[in-house]
Amino acid sequence: MRESQLLSAIYEHSADLSGAFEQVQTGPGDDCAVLRTPHGDQLLVSVDQVIEGVHYSAGRQPPLELIGRKAIARALSDIAAMGGRALGAVTAAALAPEFARAEELFEHARKAAAWFGCPLVGGDIAIRPGPLALTTTVLGVPGAARGPVLRSEACVGDVVYVTGELGGSFDPETGQGRHLTFDPRLSEGAWLAETLGDALGAMIDLSDGLGIDGGRVAAASEVALEIEAETIPHSGVGWRRALADGEDYELLFTVRPGVDVPRPTPGGTMLTRIGRVIEGRGCFVIAPDGERIDAAQLGWNHGQQ
Amino acid sequence: MRESQLLSAIYEHSADLSGAFEQVQTGPGDDCAVLRTPHGDQLLVSVDQVIEGVHYSAGRQPPLELIGRKAIARALSDIAAMGGRALGAVTAAALAPEFARAEELFEHARKAAAWFGCPLVGGDIAIRPGPLALTTTVLGVPGAARGPVLRSEACVGDVVYVTGELGGSFDPETGQGRHLTFDPRLSEGAWLAETLGDALGAMIDLSDGLGIDGGRVAAASEVALEIEAETIPHSGVGWRRALADGEDYELLFTVRPGVDVPRPTPGGTMLTRIGRVIEGRGCFVIAPDGERIDAAQLGWNHGQQ
Repeated sequence: MRESQLLSAIYEHSADLSGAFEQVQTGPGDDCAVLRTPHGDQLLVSVDQVIEGVHYSAGRQPPLELIGRKAIARALSDIAAMGGRALGAVTAAALAPEFARAEELFEHARKAAAWFGCPLVGGDIAIRPGPLALTTTVLGVPGAARGPVLRSEACVGDVVYVTGELGGSFDPETGQGRHLTFDPRLSEGAWLAETLGDALGAMIDLSDGLGIDGGRVAAASEVALEIEAETIPHSGVGWRRALADGEDYELLFTVRPGVDVPRPTPGGTMLTRIGRVIEGRGCFVIAPDGERIDAAQLGWNHGQQ
Repeated sequence: MRESQLLSAIYEHSADLSGAFEQVQTGPGDDCAVLRTPHGDQLLVSVDQVIEGVHYSAGRQPPLELIGRKAIARALSDIAAMGGRALGAVTAAALAPEFARAEELFEHARKAAAWFGCPLVGGDIAIRPGPLALTTTVLGVPGAARGPVLRSEACVGDVVYVTGELGGSFDPETGQGRHLTFDPRLSEGAWLAETLGDALGAMIDLSDGLGIDGGRVAAASEVALEIEAETIPHSGVGWRRALADGEDYELLFTVRPGVDVPRPTPGGTMLTRIGRVIEGRGCFVIAPDGERIDAAQLGWNHGQQ
């Protein structure tokens, strides 16, 4: 978790400064920053990297198509987490001198972006020794009905939901799995924002695991999340791994109490109620035996791949 | 020039696709892409990388402050080249495990960005073996009077100008020099767009050298540029190096014939008339002895550092 700890420290420095610029509505620290354009449009911005040996296995190289795809999908997941739709993306590649498939790689990224409704409008290439690295910045627009859905908007009493199934995204045998093939939950995020409006509380995409990312929502909203272990939808890996595994790219969101959430989504994505928002701080899970576990300690480290 | 050749090839593939998205006003291939927001604002987007051993010397490390600064300045130079002002930026860092100064590096980037009028609103950090790499995406807004200033808007008869002095930006003795300390010409670009309006033709920032970048304007505008060697303002290095050296980050622009360009700029930046736009293709220089040289063949390769 060294990477995210560093980022948190950096964001703390930045918090004061963003206030000096009137176009900054939400500074660093959420899934996306929110900027205002001259005529008052809200603009979502996020940057993400996909690096050989960190975000996919260096020893068991996945098909190039899936690498280019992941570089786009991972970044777009942050737009989904704000309830937004994509406006466009740019991708920069740092490639080793012996890598001869740059055009093919960009073509895969471009096609994946177009498939997700996001034109790839710019790029950069640098040749240097080192692992393949793709940096994608995505721009998006929040839903008109709800505006940007922040991590900080969970309230005590809210009900906690997740999309899809959690855990087992990375297959340790093959290095492959859903972490390479997931669809960012753009339709689901936008639909939730549109359908629930102000009844939608906080939202985040699950990249480091339900435990850690749930802890982020709790910290940003100054509340605690309490999750029932047995209700967590998982891909057959059990609730502990569903809590701890990373790279799910599902959405965790909270809904005001008493609000009916139509399920599943129009596209058939499962929405599961897994807990509630209570007073306190942190993300806790109630195990089947009644034990209350600090779930924010369970999580996943990119470095382990 | 392998990097830019690759990019050109990639942009060609993208040209058709951008047309499928109504928000794309200008796709890849100019200094910035231009997107339209829902209420019709034009948004400039560009991504650039600064990598140890490519964009600064690995053996003779410059101060960290200048590395963070360059990561911002280099990207903002693309906003300047469109006559725009900065809206915000995000920076992603890929760092070696033993690098212990990440917070300091981001703090330098953040301060440089703020100094240039651009809030740094997001970031990402990945830890992996390899040279230090910073990827910055900048967002901007074009001037209201002129709109985005493209490379493709030079017309036969236009007069060619450059800002400042060219050449000698990289000191081969120390690895340092103006390539680390330049100010992106944001004020100058915006002032030219505002003052000249539709009399301002094409504009580009000089990153790979006057010869190569002049050739890019010529190709995009389907014209030729003819430059008088003796008129090129240079930093004491002679006209050949002023043509061939890279990383000047000055602006090359064309102005409709008969239009008076107030000189210098209000901030005191020198504007020098160096040639004209003629029919044909390519960028040519008339040497003092009258020889006509293909300047697009003179240029600079990042890999040479």
